[in-house]
Amino acid sequence: MAYMELNIPKRTIMTPGPVEVDPRVLRAMSYPVLGQFDPAFTKLMNEVMEMQRAVFQTNNRWTFPIDGTSRAGNEALLASIIEPGDLVFIPIYGRFGHLLAEICERYGANVHSIQCPWGEVFDPQVVIKEMKKISPKIVAIVHGETSTGRMQPLAEIGKACREQNILLVVDAVASIGGVDVKTDEWHIDGIIGGTQKCLSVPSGMAPISFNDRIEKIILERKKVEAGIATEEDRLYNRTCLAITSNYFDLGMLMDYWSPRRLNHHTEATSMIYALHEGLRLVLEEGLENRFFRHMFHEKALTAGVEAMGLKLFGDAHHKLPCVTCIDIPSGVDGESVRNMLLEEFSIEMASSFGPLHGKIWRIGTMGYSCRKENVLAVLGGLEAVLIRHKVRVNRGEALQAALDVYAAEAKKTIAY
Amino acid sequence: MAYMELNIPKRTIMTPGPVEVDPRVLRAMSYPVLGQFDPAFTKLMNEVMEMQRAVFQTNNRWTFPIDGTSRAGNEALLASIIEPGDLVFIPIYGRFGHLLAEICERYGANVHSIQCPWGEVFDPQVVIKEMKKISPKIVAIVHGETSTGRMQPLAEIGKACREQNILLVVDAVASIGGVDVKTDEWHIDGIIGGTQKCLSVPSGMAPISFNDRIEKIILERKKVEAGIATEEDRLYNRTCLAITSNYFDLGMLMDYWSPRRLNHHTEATSMIYALHEGLRLVLEEGLENRFFRHMFHEKALTAGVEAMGLKLFGDAHHKLPCVTCIDIPSGVDGESVRNMLLEEFSIEMASSFGPLHGKIWRIGTMGYSCRKENVLAVLGGLEAVLIRHKVRVNRGEALQAALDVYAAEAKKTIAY
Repeated sequence: MAYMELNIPKRTIMTPGPVEVDPRVLRAMSYPVLGQFDPAFTKLMNEVMEMQRAVFQTNNRWTFPIDGTSRAGNEALLASIIEPGDLVFIPIYGRFGHLLAEICERYGANVHSIQCPWGEVFDPQVVIKEMKKISPKIVAIVHGETSTGRMQPLAEIGKACREQNILLVVDAVASIGGVDVKTDEWHIDGIIGGTQKCLSVPSGMAPISFNDRIEKIILERKKVEAGIATEEDRLYNRTCLAITSNYFDLGMLMDYWSPRRLNHHTEATSMIYALHEGLRLVLEEGLENRFFRHMFHEKALTAGVEAMGLKLFGDAHHKLPCVTCIDIPSGVDGESVRNMLLEEFSIEMASSFGPLHGKIWRIGTMGYSCRKENVLAVLGGLEAVLIRHKVRVNRGEALQAALDVYAAEAKKTIAY
Repeated sequence: MAYMELNIPKRTIMTPGPVEVDPRVLRAMSYPVLGQFDPAFTKLMNEVMEMQRAVFQTNNRWTFPIDGTSRAGNEALLASIIEPGDLVFIPIYGRFGHLLAEICERYGANVHSIQCPWGEVFDPQVVIKEMKKISPKIVAIVHGETSTGRMQPLAEIGKACREQNILLVVDAVASIGGVDVKTDEWHIDGIIGGTQKCLSVPSGMAPISFNDRIEKIILERKKVEAGIATEEDRLYNRTCLAITSNYFDLGMLMDYWSPRRLNHHTEATSMIYALHEGLRLVLEEGLENRFFRHMFHEKALTAGVEAMGLKLFGDAHHKLPCVTCIDIPSGVDGESVRNMLLEEFSIEMASSFGPLHGKIWRIGTMGYSCRKENVLAVLGGLEAVLIRHKVRVNRGEALQAALDVYAAEAKKTIAY
């Protein structure tokens, strides 16, 4: 059996993830691996925790990645705090709200959800009113909903949760590193980020953070594995109600990510290198500069899309800056357009899910993919492909509109 | 906040994982990422499945990696087939047998286990007799137990399981790619491999494989996520008993790893590149050559250890070729020896867990770490460090004994 060597085509990736990875991160992954308890490696683990705190804008001690993709982070946090019968309130405004609800239900929660149309977000007062009515143990909500390109304001909801002594768990997979996520200031108790979106690190890790309110619940359910437990651990184990998942048991992960360094899994070495370098890039650029860059390229992209004569999808006041959704013009086969863009121009954009499948395209401007050359490439390519699909567009206008935005801002300092 | 660039020291890693990674695999991870539904990427996913089948010696269609470390593979397989109250029989002969038991218990199984002293394995007839007595739904067992360096013969147990219509689930994390693992011939229904051991790929993925007997159970519990389910899916969802974990729901993963390509997680792109190259290296070397290489270097290593005057730990007839356990001489601080070996020689070896902690050292000869230069380095370094710790050893004998083994085999073709 003979298999070809990897021959990876060069793509311009303009989806909401996975996005292009900074060459410095790619290089980091090519370093030799270290043993998991090598002091040189545990030092890197500690640095990752410290940098992750800065990116999540939190002082939470427990701030580390889960070895799995983004939803592994959601599941680790929810599975570790939900006990069967717990009331969890989930305002759903897109696919990933449904995912939160599903994870909670699988772990035995009594889920109460409200929904709004895909493309909108909730008035925080509506969420707060419902929350006060039902008094849940947990509110779980998505910050940046990639499936619809919307962003839910969280400050007021967080304040109300804390006042009511309700736990707030936030899925910030799509927003972390691209827009402001103020974990502590917004009173978020547990939060999950994604690597393969605005952090521009490959998929495969889920950075999370949680505070002492969540730690308290976890410690009450903490268990140490039979194969490595001490006598003292064994006495303790007998009295506690275990978390169902072993892999996602945050109590064990806390023992692993602390000076006890009690073996749980074998940390994913090369992905830690990647996350280390990715976080370093974020902090070198500076959070404010990075958020500005994401809004700036969004402005050029949306100006181009509208100048072409296309319509932006969704509530403009609550748009997620790093995801731009476009109505697919009626009569146009959206998948055919996407395929031609990939095949002819090597540019990838995304469709969406559920009720929006075939209705919108989604263009991501995230992390390293959020660059002028990429924005211009996707606008130029999309126009050409649409003309090829007999769509009436304002020819040549998109790139001019985007270039105008760039020219107007030329005196400001932009990292990319 | 300023963080240093990664400065990874050069180590000789002689633990039972994570082990050194072939430079070709490290290079593969530095390629740019692709979108998860890019045809160039789904082609790689299919190639990974095909190569993984060859390494697992199986024709199972469902042969793909889980995005998580090795125990994620164990949990995915067990969580997807265990229903509360199921009787699972687990013969335990080391730490990772306890792990299987714990995972099963957490998911509600009624676990029946038998144990033998760490350092031994079970007479297959003892397992078969007990199994016939209690008629479990599942037998779960470790093939290569890294914590004790033993290997459990499985052929007879597998045959008996099939005759009794019992499912056999095997943890081959430490053995896959290093010693013979005949999934189909031994009648194994579900099996889990590890990347960071004999496959010499970084930690972070768990290749698994399962047959139609397990597929049948999973299909009965299959669910499609609310956010992406079709009307037909929704009707089906209502009638089924869901698997507790979303992340480890093999039914969803089957939809993702098949032509339906239904989005579940975002596949860990760079790790897929690494696994692709790692599997390609195994098949290029050839399974038989690779197994021979692991036994050959084991012979040199154990000859050296014994010539030095140290005692090998455990039942010699059931030694796992890629893990060599050594009794720590009485009065010697095992951790101090390990630390000096790392600090002075940059060579890493391992201790063990539970009852064996402080009692034995473990030296791995796995995958890319299983090379002549590494075997000679660890023998030379260990002798020097032991002398430094006032241990009476046969000075200079270890390397001579190992070189004798290499010289005797010099005419044979060895890949490394």
